[in-house]
Amino acid sequence: MKVTIWNENRHENKNPAVRSVYPEGIHGAIQQFLSKSGVDADTATLDEPEHGLSQQTLDQTDVLVWWGHIAHDEVKEEVVERVYQRVLDGMGLIVLHSGHFSKIFKKLMGTSCDLKWREADEKERLWVVDPSHPIASGIGEYIELPQEEMYGEHFDIPAPDELVFVSWFEGGEVFRSGCTYKRGKGKVFYFRPGHETYPTYHNADVQKVILNAVQWAKPAGSNKPVYGNAKPLEAIGANQN
Amino acid sequence: MKVTIWNENRHENKNPAVRSVYPEGIHGAIQQFLSKSGVDADTATLDEPEHGLSQQTLDQTDVLVWWGHIAHDEVKEEVVERVYQRVLDGMGLIVLHSGHFSKIFKKLMGTSCDLKWREADEKERLWVVDPSHPIASGIGEYIELPQEEMYGEHFDIPAPDELVFVSWFEGGEVFRSGCTYKRGKGKVFYFRPGHETYPTYHNADVQKVILNAVQWAKPAGSNKPVYGNAKPLEAIGANQN
Amino acid sequence: MKVTIWNENRHENKNPAVRSVYPEGIHGAIQQFLSKSGVDADTATLDEPEHGLSQQTLDQTDVLVWWGHIAHDEVKEEVVERVYQRVLDGMGLIVLHSGHFSKIFKKLMGTSCDLKWREADEKERLWVVDPSHPIASGIGEYIELPQEEMYGEHFDIPAPDELVFVSWFEGGEVFRSGCTYKRGKGKVFYFRPGHETYPTYHNADVQKVILNAVQWAKPAGSNKPVYGNAKPLEAIGANQN
Amino acid sequence: MKVTIWNENRHENKNPAVRSVYPEGIHGAIQQFLSKSGVDADTATLDEPEHGLSQQTLDQTDVLVWWGHIAHDEVKEEVVERVYQRVLDGMGLIVLHSGHFSKIFKKLMGTSCDLKWREADEKERLWVVDPSHPIASGIGEYIELPQEEMYGEHFDIPAPDELVFVSWFEGGEVFRSGCTYKRGKGKVFYFRPGHETYPTYHNADVQKVILNAVQWAKPAGSNKPVYGNAKPLEAIGANQN
Repeated sequence: MKVTIWNENRHENKNPAVRSVYPEGIHGAIQQFLSKSGVDADTATLDEPEHGLSQQTLDQTDVLVWWGHIAHDEVKEEVVERVYQRVLDGMGLIVLHSGHFSKIFKKLMGTSCDLKWREADEKERLWVVDPSHPIASGIGEYIELPQEEMYGEHFDIPAPDELVFVSWFEGGEVFRSGCTYKRGKGKVFYFRPGHETYPTYHNADVQKVILNAVQWAKPAGSNKPVYGNAKPLEAIGANQN
Repeated sequence: MKVTIWNENRHENKNPAVRSVYPEGIHGAIQQFLSKSGVDADTATLDEPEHGLSQQTLDQTDVLVWWGHIAHDEVKEEVVERVYQRVLDGMGLIVLHSGHFSKIFKKLMGTSCDLKWREADEKERLWVVDPSHPIASGIGEYIELPQEEMYGEHFDIPAPDELVFVSWFEGGEVFRSGCTYKRGKGKVFYFRPGHETYPTYHNADVQKVILNAVQWAKPAGSNKPVYGNAKPLEAIGANQN
Repeated sequence: MKVTIWNENRHENKNPAVRSVYPEGIHGAIQQFLSKSGVDADTATLDEPEHGLSQQTLDQTDVLVWWGHIAHDEVKEEVVERVYQRVLDGMGLIVLHSGHFSKIFKKLMGTSCDLKWREADEKERLWVVDPSHPIASGIGEYIELPQEEMYGEHFDIPAPDELVFVSWFEGGEVFRSGCTYKRGKGKVFYFRPGHETYPTYHNADVQKVILNAVQWAKPAGSNKPVYGNAKPLEAIGANQN
Repeated sequence: MKVTIWNENRHENKNPAVRSVYPEGIHGAIQQFLSKSGVDADTATLDEPEHGLSQQTLDQTDVLVWWGHIAHDEVKEEVVERVYQRVLDGMGLIVLHSGHFSKIFKKLMGTSCDLKWREADEKERLWVVDPSHPIASGIGEYIELPQEEMYGEHFDIPAPDELVFVSWFEGGEVFRSGCTYKRGKGKVFYFRPGHETYPTYHNADVQKVILNAVQWAKPAGSNKPVYGNAKPLEAIGANQN
């Protein structure tokens, strides 16, 4: 299995506070813990040619992890389309935190993906509401993050195929924080936490969830479906009574 | 449309504090606000013959509202079976609060329906997570109840067909508080609030939700399905190639 | 309630065979049976200014019915965007037959919406798989259409929120023919039958389903959600232990 | 991973025609192909003490496969209850064909699980409707069985969490043939084919689906949830405004 971690990588370059939390970038932090678990993980960033997501790279990617925030608009339509086609073809996609507003997530969801938010260093608890789900494997009753950005309902997404986590926030809100979807042959997982100023991707439980999600999202399923004009499998008219 | 509100009606008779909140019983309070909205609503209670749920009563009931708590075990199996068959036949069922542990709800869910709970006069906010749902009609972003019993995840239910409300509790928990299901031709709605010591059923938003739910749950759908040995609709063997 | 029926209206103008089946156009046929049932229904077509879907028209439309086939590409992006925003705002949308490939349906689904098809005058049976659903109200075990175009799986849509009908085709295929979705505050129903050369929209059961769907899809739900930066509802930091 | 294959094993003993198709019993046939794929699989049958399903056996079982038909009523309540608790605790359950009417399946579903049926040696095609699902891994567009018993809609089950296969039958019916559910920490898969008089479990595609299902259903997920009276995680009352 080959994972590609895509990161906008702008906050890290502009903001020393972010760089101090993620010296190798958010993509680097994720790559590190996935690699430690034996996952073959590469990175790609916005400012590389083709945003680091050439057709060849995507064709060799089983699961793509996506973090973006302030530069969603800079992602080229042709790259979005390329990623989209790969998802329909079976590539897994893990969308993190502010990636809810990325072009690719909105295109796959068919909704605005809007939400409430607040930066107030508040406590978050991600409660497991589906204890049977492999993405929650090894997690206790909840994941606690002492300080995070708040995301609150209403989150304008289609009803998830599976709801794995629901967040509680100190300031009074809740959020559907772990949501699975299928699009074509591809699996999609949205996972809420990970504001750039907090060490969320250094949290062992958050790392476990991303590792589980990557395993869950890897390509599987039936042979590639065939579309278009089809010959009948049975004689038509033979049955007319 | 004819609604029957079933109540165990034991707390009200034993506990003056509960009686002072609900002088006519929880069933009486619900009947009152439904009637004011023009809904034909009757009541039935545990200590009536057949718990007030004779075959005739159930046959004439379009939607049954259920509140029970300390006497789930006293509900006779034959009455549970009668209610169950009526749900499969199309009667709507609204299960309130501690009714999560009623025999009829557990039978329809196929799970333990267990949960966490705490009585600590804490604040609850029921956030609307499905703003398109008719059960949330006329509700703002959330319903606030200044004091309620806490119910927390994990709530051991099947993933709801639709999730309408998610509760936030002051003490740190979340809960899937408004859940729809279909069983046979019948619709089921579980709605969390309503501990007997709080004036929850006097809250205008809670009343609106129950009124909406009753409208949503009324019988509809296709003609009664036919089961068993079936004649072929098409000649079999004619198509063999 | 105000319904607008949108039709591409090209086959009717080009093909006498289609015109003989639908002398007033497919939109006219649908308008007629909805009006007879007391529904206030207007029509709009591709070749009208703004395709007949001005902002004002859409703002006054509760449910939009959509039929298109050979001219999907001619529908202007700005009109698609306008319809999309209205769906997220609560307008119902009923997509018929070849509308599966319309820009608006693909945008709302987030998938290719591709499928198999065949024109061979074959028998279709739409089996009710959710007998509790109001869209199936008054329908028997199945709807039989003596001759229709075949649509076959795999149908590349997200798993429907609710699956109401599954079609059987004489030539050996099946199809998820009645699918509900929610997007934002809006409800969407895809209904398969209705190839332009068959008198499908004159079928009483098909008419009943469309009438039911229009009732089901009308706006309901909570007040309009608020998005963006939100003040805390609770004091943050007060609970630090 | 340890799989236990449970079979009623009555047809095989009474009916030479069945015995000639399954000389080692249906359980033996399933054990054989699972073992060949490296799965540690044991069998258990109705006439063994405790139906071969002692607490110890179930505690060591990761996934239970269930085939029953004419002797559902002979399965003791206490064994049903034992299996039920193990499913809620995380044991996977694969229910085959006429197992739709088993006590354990009905208890987990909360519905009658009734359906239409016909024994007429007719052709069945199981179409993949979810090509992303690991249970469909390696399967083409459909599985064809030249002769099977027909099962037809309406199938009185809750809407499946995931619908993987839909069957087409020569005689004119369709059926939701591959359905996933979650109950507590356990995963359940219902798979339609396998009437005792046909060599269905010798079909390579059917074997692949059962092997995939066993992998999919193995225990995973979060730590065991805790239920009951819970201490607050946050100070209550501190936030009163």
